[in-house]
Formats: sequence, C-alpha cells, structure tokens
Amino acid sequence: MLPESVVQGGEKYWSWELETMDPEQRKELILQRIQSQLSYVYENLPFYRDHYDKHGFHPSMVKTLDDFSEKVPIITKKMLVENQAHNPIFGSYAGNFSMEEIERIQGSSGTSGTPTLYCVSRKDWERSAEISARALWSIGVRAQDIVQISFPFSLFFAGWGVLQGVERIGATAFPLGVTDSERQLALMDKVGSTVFSATPSYAIHLISVAKQMGLDLRKNKVKKLFVGGEPGGSLDSVRQVIEDGWGADVYESGSCSEMYPFNTSTTCEAKAGVHLYLDEVYSEIVDKDDPNRRLPMGERGAIVYTHLWRQSQPMIRFWPGDESYMTDEPCSCGRTYPRLPEGVLGRLDDMVIIRGANVYPSAIDKILRSVSGVGPEYQVILEKQLGGLDEITVRLEYDPEVYNHLTPGGKAESLDNLAKEAAHKLKTGIGIRFSVEVIEPGELPATVVKAKRVIDRRKQR
Amino acid sequence: MLPESVVQGGEKYWSWELETMDPEQRKELILQRIQSQLSYVYENLPFYRDHYDKHGFHPSMVKTLDDFSEKVPIITKKMLVENQAHNPIFGSYAGNFSMEEIERIQGSSGTSGTPTLYCVSRKDWERSAEISARALWSIGVRAQDIVQISFPFSLFFAGWGVLQGVERIGATAFPLGVTDSERQLALMDKVGSTVFSATPSYAIHLISVAKQMGLDLRKNKVKKLFVGGEPGGSLDSVRQVIEDGWGADVYESGSCSEMYPFNTSTTCEAKAGVHLYLDEVYSEIVDKDDPNRRLPMGERGAIVYTHLWRQSQPMIRFWPGDESYMTDEPCSCGRTYPRLPEGVLGRLDDMVIIRGANVYPSAIDKILRSVSGVGPEYQVILEKQLGGLDEITVRLEYDPEVYNHLTPGGKAESLDNLAKEAAHKLKTGIGIRFSVEVIEPGELPATVVKAKRVIDRRKQR
Repeated sequence: MLPESVVQGGEKYWSWELETMDPEQRKELILQRIQSQLSYVYENLPFYRDHYDKHGFHPSMVKTLDDFSEKVPIITKKMLVENQAHNPIFGSYAGNFSMEEIERIQGSSGTSGTPTLYCVSRKDWERSAEISARALWSIGVRAQDIVQISFPFSLFFAGWGVLQGVERIGATAFPLGVTDSERQLALMDKVGSTVFSATPSYAIHLISVAKQMGLDLRKNKVKKLFVGGEPGGSLDSVRQVIEDGWGADVYESGSCSEMYPFNTSTTCEAKAGVHLYLDEVYSEIVDKDDPNRRLPMGERGAIVYTHLWRQSQPMIRFWPGDESYMTDEPCSCGRTYPRLPEGVLGRLDDMVIIRGANVYPSAIDKILRSVSGVGPEYQVILEKQLGGLDEITVRLEYDPEVYNHLTPGGKAESLDNLAKEAAHKLKTGIGIRFSVEVIEPGELPATVVKAKRVIDRRKQR
Repeated sequence: MLPESVVQGGEKYWSWELETMDPEQRKELILQRIQSQLSYVYENLPFYRDHYDKHGFHPSMVKTLDDFSEKVPIITKKMLVENQAHNPIFGSYAGNFSMEEIERIQGSSGTSGTPTLYCVSRKDWERSAEISARALWSIGVRAQDIVQISFPFSLFFAGWGVLQGVERIGATAFPLGVTDSERQLALMDKVGSTVFSATPSYAIHLISVAKQMGLDLRKNKVKKLFVGGEPGGSLDSVRQVIEDGWGADVYESGSCSEMYPFNTSTTCEAKAGVHLYLDEVYSEIVDKDDPNRRLPMGERGAIVYTHLWRQSQPMIRFWPGDESYMTDEPCSCGRTYPRLPEGVLGRLDDMVIIRGANVYPSAIDKILRSVSGVGPEYQVILEKQLGGLDEITVRLEYDPEVYNHLTPGGKAESLDNLAKEAAHKLKTGIGIRFSVEVIEPGELPATVVKAKRVIDRRKQR
C-alpha cells in the first residue's frame, strides 16, 4: 500500500527521489516547471497576462532561475483581493475550471469583512494530499498514530490540510477541531492521541490548562506536536517551552493560505528548521525593498513563493509579506532541500519601529520564552507621551508553579528579580529599554488560536 | 468515472441494483447478512457474546427475519456507555482492529460529561462514503453542485458524513461549518452554493436572519436543502416553512450517531418520507414495550437498527429510543425501499404526559408550523400548581413581516387572532387545552443547532 518511493527510501522518505535529489538536478526540474507554469498563466489567466504586460514581462524572457527572480514581477494579497472583487467568484487567476472540476472551496477571514475565496481543482487537491503526506511522514507520522487536530475545520485551510495528510498516510484521524480546552485534553487522554496539531500559542496555553486540571502532559501518549498557523514553532526558545511542557517533540509547518493546502515548508525529524519542498513550491528570499533581488543564503529578507504544479489559482512569485532567511547547509535527515532555520520570523508589517529600532514581535517572544519563571501569556504595549519618546512596556504573567510555594516576602522579591532579568535580556537582545511589569497568571486572556500580543497605542492618538 | 450502476439506472440511482431490487429478493440478502453479522459479533465481540449468552440467545437460532426480530435481544446506548467505561477505548464491541486499520475517531457530546467514542475502520469508512453518496445522489446532488455544510466539523459525525458523500460524488464541498449566521448567508451568496446542509431549526432561523439583512433567500442559487440532526425535515408543515422561505426543495436524512456515518435514511426526490436502505442498515419498527414484537406497516413504534456490513463497532438491533412508523407502499422514485413517511417523529423519552395525554414535541411543532403568521421561535412551558392540573403554555413569536405594517390597533387584534387560531389548532390536533401567549420576535434565543423548545417545570418542584 505504501508508494514505491517509500520502500526505496527505507521507510524514511515519502518521496525518496524528490527529497534527496541532487540540488543541481532539482534546479533543472524547477526551471522546466517554472517555464511551463509561466506559459500556462500567461496564456490562460488574465490576471497574470495583464500584470505581466503592464510590467513589460513575457514568459519567453525566463531562461534561467536568475531570470525568474530578476524579471518576474511579484504579486501580493492586495492584488488578489482587488482582482476577486472585479472577477467573482474566484478571480481571473482561478483558471478555466468548470464547477465539476473543483473539489473544494475555502476562504480567508478577511479583516475588511470581504474574505478572499480559494478554489482547488480535483487534480490539485489530489496532489496536495500527497504533499501533506510527505510533510507528516517527514516528522515521523505513521499508520499506527492517532492524530488529534485542534485547528478549526471551517473557512480556513489549516485543519483541512493536516487532515488530508493524515488520511493519505493512513494514520487515524481525530479531527476534534476547536473545543473547550479541558475537553481537548480530557479526550486526548481518553483516546490516547499520539500526535497533536495546534498553533504554538495554543500548545503553550494547554500546558497551563493541564496544570490547573492536575494533568501531567508529559505522561500522556502524545509524542509529537505538529504546530503552525503562526510563527514560532522553529524558534529554539518557543520549542523548548512546548517540548518541556509536553515531554514531546515539536515540529513546525508554516506557509500561508494562498499557498495552501500545499504543506511544503515542514520541519524534519532533525528539527533543524523548516525544509522547503522546492520541487513543489519554489521559494526565494529577496530584498524586502527590491523583490527582484534574490538574497544570498543567510541574509534576512522577504519570502516569495511559486506553485510549480498547481493549476487552480496558482501563485507565481507571491509575496505574503513574511520575513525569514534560508540556509542550504546539509541536514542530517538526508533531505537536500534548503531550510528556513527559524521558520517564518514574522510578518514584515508586524515589525514596529521603536525609537528608531526595528523590533519584531517574534524577537520579543524568543527572548521572553528563554526567561525561566515566565508564565504562558504576556502583552507588549507601545505608548507615546505627547512630545515624548516611545515607551514600550511588557506585561508578563509569572508561572505560578515556580513562585506560589514561596513565602509572601520571598515571592515578591523573586518576582522583582524576574522583572529585572526579563528587562535585562530584552535590552541586551533588542538594544532598547523595556519596562517590565509582572502580573498575576490568568490576568490576560488565554491565546486559543493565533496570538496577537502587541498593542500599539501610539497610533490611536 | 461514474459507477456502472449509475449508468444502468439512467443517472437516477447511485446503486441501481440495490435501490430497485425486488423486496423479496432483498429479504434473502438481508437474512444472509444478518446471519453472517450475528456469527461475527458472537465470535469476535465479547460485548455481544456476553449479552446474548445472558439472554439465552445463539446466532444459530436465526433462520428467518422473523426469528431475528423475535429472538435477538436489543442493545441500548446505556449498555454501550457502560461497556466503554469498562473496556476502554472503544468498548468490547469495537472489534479486533489495530490502530493501523482505524481511519477515524469521532464521539458523542455526552451529557454526563463522558462522551461515547466511535471508531471506524478503513474498510467501513470506505463503505460509508458509498452510502453517503447514494443518499446525496438520491436527492439530486451532482458534480456541478456546490454543497455548503453548516454542521459542525468536530466531535460529532454530522458534517463529516455529508462531506464524505459530497467528495465521493465529486461535487464541490464548501465545508464552512459553524460560523456567524450573517456570514453563513453572505458567503452562500458570494460562492453561489446550490445545496445547503443544516438542521431544520437552523434553516428556519436563517430565514429571519436573511430578512434582517434584507436578503431574499428565494433569489439565491440554493435549490436544495439537505436537513438532519433532529426530527422535522419530513413533516409537511416544517418542510413547507423552509421551502417557502428558501424557494428550494427540502430533503431529510436522519439516523443517530451510533449508526453513523452511514446515511441510510434519506428522502428521495419524491419527498415522500425517508427511504430506509435496508441492504445496508436493516431497520425495524417494534412495540415500544416489547422490542421483540415487530409491528405491522403503519403502526407507530420504536425504531431498531442493524448494521449489515459494518465490522468496527457494528450495531445489531440498536434501540436509539426514537419513534416512527413505516410504509412499504411504492414510491414514485422507483426505489423499492420502505419509508418512514414522516421521518423520525422524536425520541420516546421526549414524550411528555399532560393531563394523562401523551404529547410529542414534534406534534406541537407540526401544528404550529401550519399556522400562518407564526415566527421562527417558540417555547412550550409545562407547569403544575400545587394540587392543581398540569398547565401547558406556548410562548409564540409572531412573524414581523406579517404584522408590522398594520396599525397598532389592527396589529393587536390580528395577534390576538393568531393566539386564538394556534390554541384552537393545538386543541383540535392534540386533544388538550393550551394557553397561547404571542411574544415579540427575537425574544427567545435563536436555535442554531438542535432545538430544545419544551421546558418542563413540573419536575423542578
């Protein structure tokens, strides 16, 4: 029942040839696919033809991968939203599919109240199941696993993509979706789930819920967490908090809804960052001020993604506004795919400028998770007094397990030290002064899906 | 791509041979399967062996279908819950399946806080997809349809079973699940969904939400509603309200979680009640005081279900506590399956005794839906004064569209007439006196999933 390639790869790889291919040979394959996709979108999808014509670009101009990076104009979410508004239902980048050929419709939340709609053809859906299986297989999910999925099964792709992979591998799916956290944990124990899929924030939140319930997550059967939906799962500090609390390995998968349900960015068992399945989604790191300048390995920049096979709503040089850096150093897992060593670092537009310094929420998160005694939730508040400097305050919950057994005097002193240590590490790591206020655990609302921890009050004036 | 049987049946039937089989020939097939299942469960599932031994029953005693009804002891939800408590995870009726062979885990809500867990083997899951497709095909769902599913995708089977059928037919799935009602409708318009799946209560609720939004549901693209999850979808009065509000046909599918994801009780395009796919789930109507006395066609009694093919957690003579009656009169659709002309009428234990009369919530519902001017929600309150008689009061919302354009005096008089007409019809239909109080629309909480409209305050003293 397993594909030939798995057997060849000694059960380690789902798609042995592709995953371990010589990188130079892979580049040839990628270039062929890029040329083929460019022709397809230019000839069939008015959105791309108009866009390329406007920029004086033509598919025949791409003879090398460098040409692709240097000559093909990027596309953005804003362009897609505008295009869908004028070309209902799915935009003039959807392809000529009759409804008989569409397998699935999903959507984005749409902060403006107008969700972008995604459609996936039957052939693309079939293909994405293979890719999701490749991803889950690479973190060690096998047929005997029970995979509990806490992502919502609704408009977003998140939970659906994971479910597809679980079904394709032949593991047991327990698609509980969003439910009360105590119930999520009680059922996990009862069913004996071996893999848990969630956002990193929710995985952290459940650690404190378990404590309140008197459960030790380290004693349950969960051996792997498959996290995603927000950055963080590849940051050592965040992963450490989750791994310690759960006594389980943490693996990340991260991309964006426009590229989904293709799970092409997933940690392997070596947990050395997110592998990029370049033969399926070609991924570049480019200058955030010049999308046609690809950056050398190791340099931070903006991510740009390209679907190499998808025919329904293919994204060609899509710019999600996410930041990261790439490495092509060999990974011990044997896969020859390059990696994002810390996954997606965050959104470029999440970056806040404080007293002239560029500060990313992920950097704050990384530092706070490394301070022992910090509880599950915190909040970052930016303020500006009239005519004064920006003020940045971190309101930090403490971990009751660490402090609540102390005498009142001892506790006060220790919490004071906690505040000082956090402020010191933030100053050292980011280069500016932070005020740190330690607050009672439970004072902040628990993060259940995606964390939104930075509140910028400077703009409200 | 379509199965042979569909082609043979002129695209009308998903499984032509089975659906139009001579009933006598079908009985032979059923008897064979029953004998095979009885041997399987007796030899392999300790729950059944113990139960049968205790009742002095042995599979060899079943030589006819009458033997089956008369000799096989029923099983109940209570027995399953107890058995799971002593035989985790899935009970000693789950079968000898390794986790590799289990496709899916779902569960019940568990009012006591302990959900029953369901497991479905890969083979059974594959089979249930075929059955769900047969059901959706029979109401006319085809590959060009977009099916919007508003059932939750979580612990319950409901949404998952529908999704399976949609995928198998090759229609487009839009599995939105539970979301804000205005959004449910806005996306329905945007996507152009042609089939909508919901509880009857939610379908009725959305009619008033649409009015508030200024939307006319009759003008959208939804041509079919596939309702279930609670009784009512086969009652003419309830169906009429939904069909008028939506300008679309209403079809019902109804069973219970223990029998799911097998959608074996579904209306056909003739809308003449729910067909019972007896070759998959053998269904009997029995005396509610004697489960071994099968009732003649037309008589009201308790439903008893039997999985004829399922191997993981098969239910053999399962008693869900639901009431109905059956007919074997020919259906114009050509299917030779018997029908429940009004679907499941309600739960036997939902029946309330008022001044000595047996009253079913479904009977009240049926009557109120037939009174014009009645709004979407109502409540039935049972009270008893010390030493006095039972009092039954119906608090009824009026439909603002019917009354709000009247003068204040005219409106008061018309609402008074509405109360009188409702009271009169209830008295005539059920045989006892009801107080009817007309209230403002929106005063009662809207029913989003399953309706719970009867409040019995007599027990609270």
